[in-house]
Amino acid sequence: MNETTTMDALIDQIQALLEHGNDEEAAQMLRELHPADSAELLYELEDDSRSRMLQLLAWEEVAAVLEEMDQVDMVEMVKDLSVAELADVLDEMEPDMAADLLGGLSEDEAAVLIGEMEESDDVVPLLAYPEDTAGGIMNSARHMLRRFMTVQQAMEFLREYYADEHDLYYLYVLDRYQCLVGVVSLRSLVLAEPQQTLGEIMAEDVMSVPPETDQEEVARLLARYNLLALPVIDDRGRMLGIVTVDDVVDVIEEEATEDIYRLAQVGEDSEIFSPIPQAIRNRLPWLSINMVTAFLSSTVVALFAGTIGQVAILAALMPIVAAQGGNAGNQAMTIVVRSLGLGQITVRDAWRVLRHEISVGVLHGIILGLMVATIAFIWLGNPYLSLIIGLAMLGNLFVASLVGVLVPMTLSRFGLDPALGSSMFVTATTDILGFSLFLGLATFFIQRLT
Amino acid sequence: MNETTTMDALIDQIQALLEHGNDEEAAQMLRELHPADSAELLYELEDDSRSRMLQLLAWEEVAAVLEEMDQVDMVEMVKDLSVAELADVLDEMEPDMAADLLGGLSEDEAAVLIGEMEESDDVVPLLAYPEDTAGGIMNSARHMLRRFMTVQQAMEFLREYYADEHDLYYLYVLDRYQCLVGVVSLRSLVLAEPQQTLGEIMAEDVMSVPPETDQEEVARLLARYNLLALPVIDDRGRMLGIVTVDDVVDVIEEEATEDIYRLAQVGEDSEIFSPIPQAIRNRLPWLSINMVTAFLSSTVVALFAGTIGQVAILAALMPIVAAQGGNAGNQAMTIVVRSLGLGQITVRDAWRVLRHEISVGVLHGIILGLMVATIAFIWLGNPYLSLIIGLAMLGNLFVASLVGVLVPMTLSRFGLDPALGSSMFVTATTDILGFSLFLGLATFFIQRLT
Repeated sequence: MNETTTMDALIDQIQALLEHGNDEEAAQMLRELHPADSAELLYELEDDSRSRMLQLLAWEEVAAVLEEMDQVDMVEMVKDLSVAELADVLDEMEPDMAADLLGGLSEDEAAVLIGEMEESDDVVPLLAYPEDTAGGIMNSARHMLRRFMTVQQAMEFLREYYADEHDLYYLYVLDRYQCLVGVVSLRSLVLAEPQQTLGEIMAEDVMSVPPETDQEEVARLLARYNLLALPVIDDRGRMLGIVTVDDVVDVIEEEATEDIYRLAQVGEDSEIFSPIPQAIRNRLPWLSINMVTAFLSSTVVALFAGTIGQVAILAALMPIVAAQGGNAGNQAMTIVVRSLGLGQITVRDAWRVLRHEISVGVLHGIILGLMVATIAFIWLGNPYLSLIIGLAMLGNLFVASLVGVLVPMTLSRFGLDPALGSSMFVTATTDILGFSLFLGLATFFIQRLT
Repeated sequence: MNETTTMDALIDQIQALLEHGNDEEAAQMLRELHPADSAELLYELEDDSRSRMLQLLAWEEVAAVLEEMDQVDMVEMVKDLSVAELADVLDEMEPDMAADLLGGLSEDEAAVLIGEMEESDDVVPLLAYPEDTAGGIMNSARHMLRRFMTVQQAMEFLREYYADEHDLYYLYVLDRYQCLVGVVSLRSLVLAEPQQTLGEIMAEDVMSVPPETDQEEVARLLARYNLLALPVIDDRGRMLGIVTVDDVVDVIEEEATEDIYRLAQVGEDSEIFSPIPQAIRNRLPWLSINMVTAFLSSTVVALFAGTIGQVAILAALMPIVAAQGGNAGNQAMTIVVRSLGLGQITVRDAWRVLRHEISVGVLHGIILGLMVATIAFIWLGNPYLSLIIGLAMLGNLFVASLVGVLVPMTLSRFGLDPALGSSMFVTATTDILGFSLFLGLATFFIQRLT
C-alpha cells in the first residue's frame, strides 16, 4: 500500500512540474527512479505529458523503461515516436525485448524499423519464433568462450567484450561449429584458480531446450533445477540464445494469471482497468455461451413443469442439488487443471486421478446427501422428499467427480488448454443432471409428495 | 509427457533392482540424477524401498534431495531416520531448508535435533520467523566483505571461504557493525579491474526488506526489479540473511496455486493425490458452507411457492437469472482478487474499480437482458414474462458488479485474503437476489402471466 502511495505522490509531483513547464526537472526525477518504477509512472501519465517526457529522455533511458513493460504497453508507449527515433531506441534495447516490441507492430512497420536499425542482426533471428516459446523469450547468444581459455583469459575477455551485458549468469563454452560443449557459472569462475582452463572447470552436462519449447515448460525446468539461465539450441546442437530467470519469473506470473482468468471464464488479457469495450469483449462471449447452457438446463426443468405445478417447493430445492454438483465438480476440475499446469500429472494419469476423485465424490455424495436429506426433513417433514433430494445429491456428486476429471483431461488430450472452457462444461453437466435427477425422481414418487 | 514417461520407467527400474536385492546399483542410479529428480523418484517409491535407499545414500546426498522438497514431503521422507542420522543430514542442508524441516517437526523433536547438530548456529536464528515471511525463506548471511578490499582480495577471500556456497549471486559489503553498506554483483566483480576496491565498484543504494515482510511481497520486489537476491536487514540496518531468486520462483508458484485453489473453494494445501481423508477435509467444509447458503436462497424461492404453483415455467427460467449473476460477479471478483494479488491495485482504488465495474455490469445487464428477453419471447411468446426476466437480469448483473468488487475489497481491507470466501459471498448474493428479483416481479405481474 505504501508503494502505491509513493507512486501516486510521484505522479502528482511530475504532473505539477510539467504543468509549470519544468520539463527538465520532471525528467530528472524520472531518471533517478528504477526503470520498473519509471515504466509504471509513464504509463499512468496523460498522453501528451508522456510524449514530452519521452522526448527528454536519452534513447538508452527510454529503452530501459520499455524493457520493463509488456508488449501491449510498449506499443502504446512508442506510438508518437518517429521511425528514426524508435529505431534508435530499439538499438539500445535487449534483443528479446526489441523483438517483442517489433512483434507488436504491423509487419510493414516492423520491416521499416528493421531497415533503420543499426543492430538488427541480434533481433531479426528472434522474430522467427512465436512469443510464448523458448525462442520467443530468449536473448541472442554471444558467448564465444572456448575450452582452452584460462580463467584469467576468460575474465579479460569478459571485461573487454561483455561490459554491457546484463544477463551474465553462466558462461557457455562453444566448439568451433558453435555447438555448446559446456557451461561455467560465474560463481565457479570466481572461485577457480586463475590458471585453470575453462575445459577443466566447466560442466559438460548442460541442460538445454529447443527453440519451440513452450515458455511454461522452460519456466518449469528453470524452477525445478534452480537454474539462472537455460541455453536454447537448434537440432544440430548449435547455440541460438539463452533464456534467463528474470524472464521466467514474469512467465510464471503470466501463466498463473492466464489460468486464473480462464478458470473464471474471463479473457486472459484482462486487466483491472481495461477500457470498457475491451472488458466486455473479454467477458461477454463467456456469459453468452453460459446463457445458452443455462437455457438448455431450463428446457430440462420445463419438461417437469407438471410436477412443479403440483409440488412448487421442488423449485426451491432443485437449485441446491445443481449448485452442489457444480461446486464439487469445479473443485475437482481446478485441482486437475492446476496439477496438469504444474506438470505434476499428465493425461496418462487420467485413470488414477479418476479413481481418486470418484472415491472423494462418492464420499462427499453420501455425506452431503445425508445432510441435505436431514435439513429438508426438518424443514418440510416429508421423508420421501428427503430421500429424493439425498439420492439426487449423491448421483450428482458422483457425476461431478467424473466430469471434473474427464473434461480437463480430454481438453488436454487434444492439445487444448484444460483451463479454458472446463468450468462451463462441468457446470452445464451438473446443472442439467442435478435438475433431471431430482425432478425425475420427484415425478416418479409424485403421489408421495402431494 | 516425455519427462513423466522417463520418470515412470526409472521408478520401475529401481523397484526391480530393489526387488532383486541390487540395492547398491539402485542407489548408484539415483546418485546420477539431479537432486530434483531423485526427490520425485524417492517420493514415488514405496515406504520400505525408500528407507533402504536413504540408508545407502551419503548424508550430503540425502540433504541435497530433501532441499528439493516442500515441508510436508521432507517430514514424511525422514520419518524412519534416527536422531543421530537426521542431525547429520540437517548439518549438510542449506540453513533455510534445515529450518523449514525443523519447523515441520514437533517442538520437542526439533529441540533434540538442534542439540545433536554441529552446525545449528546458522539454523536456529531462522526458526524465529514465520515460514511465509522473508525471515522464513532467507538463508543466513555470511558475506563479511569490507569496502576497502580490492577486487583481487575479494576473489581470494571468496575462494577461501565460499567454495561451498551455492547462493553466491551478489556480494554484500558490511561495515564493522554488521550494517549493510553496499552490494557488488558477481558480474561487476568479474568485469572490474583487479586493483579496484569494493568501495569503488559497489552500489550503495541496496534494496532490502525487514524479516517480517510477507514472502509474496518479497517475490514481487525480486520480480519487479529483476534481482537475483534480496538482503534481509533488522531495524538497525544489520544484515540477517538473503532471499534468493530460486526460493522466489517457488513462492510465486505456491502463491498462485493458493489463489487458484481458494478461488475454487478448495483448501490451499490440496494435492492431486492427497489421501482421501485429507482431500475431504480440504473440500467438504466449503461444500457444507455452500449448502447453508443454498438453503438460504431456497427459502427465498419457497416464499414464492404460490406464484410458482400458478406459473411453473418460472421455475425453469429463474436459474438463468441467478447463474448469469453468479458468473458475471465471479468474473469481476476474480479480476479484482488477482490484481490485488499482483499489487496492481490496493484497497485505495476501490472507488475507481467500482465505477469501472458498474459500467461493465450495466452494459452486460442491458445486452444479456435483451438476449434473455428475446430468447424467452421466442420460446414462450409472453411479452410480460420477457420483460420480467430482462429486468431481473439487468438488476442482478448490476448487483453482481457491486459485490464482485466490494466483497474482495472488504476482505482485503480487514487484512483477510480476498481469494478466500469471495466466491461464496458473490454466488450467495447473486442467487438470492436473482431469485427474489425475478419471482418478485413475476408475483407483481402475475395476472399477465397466467
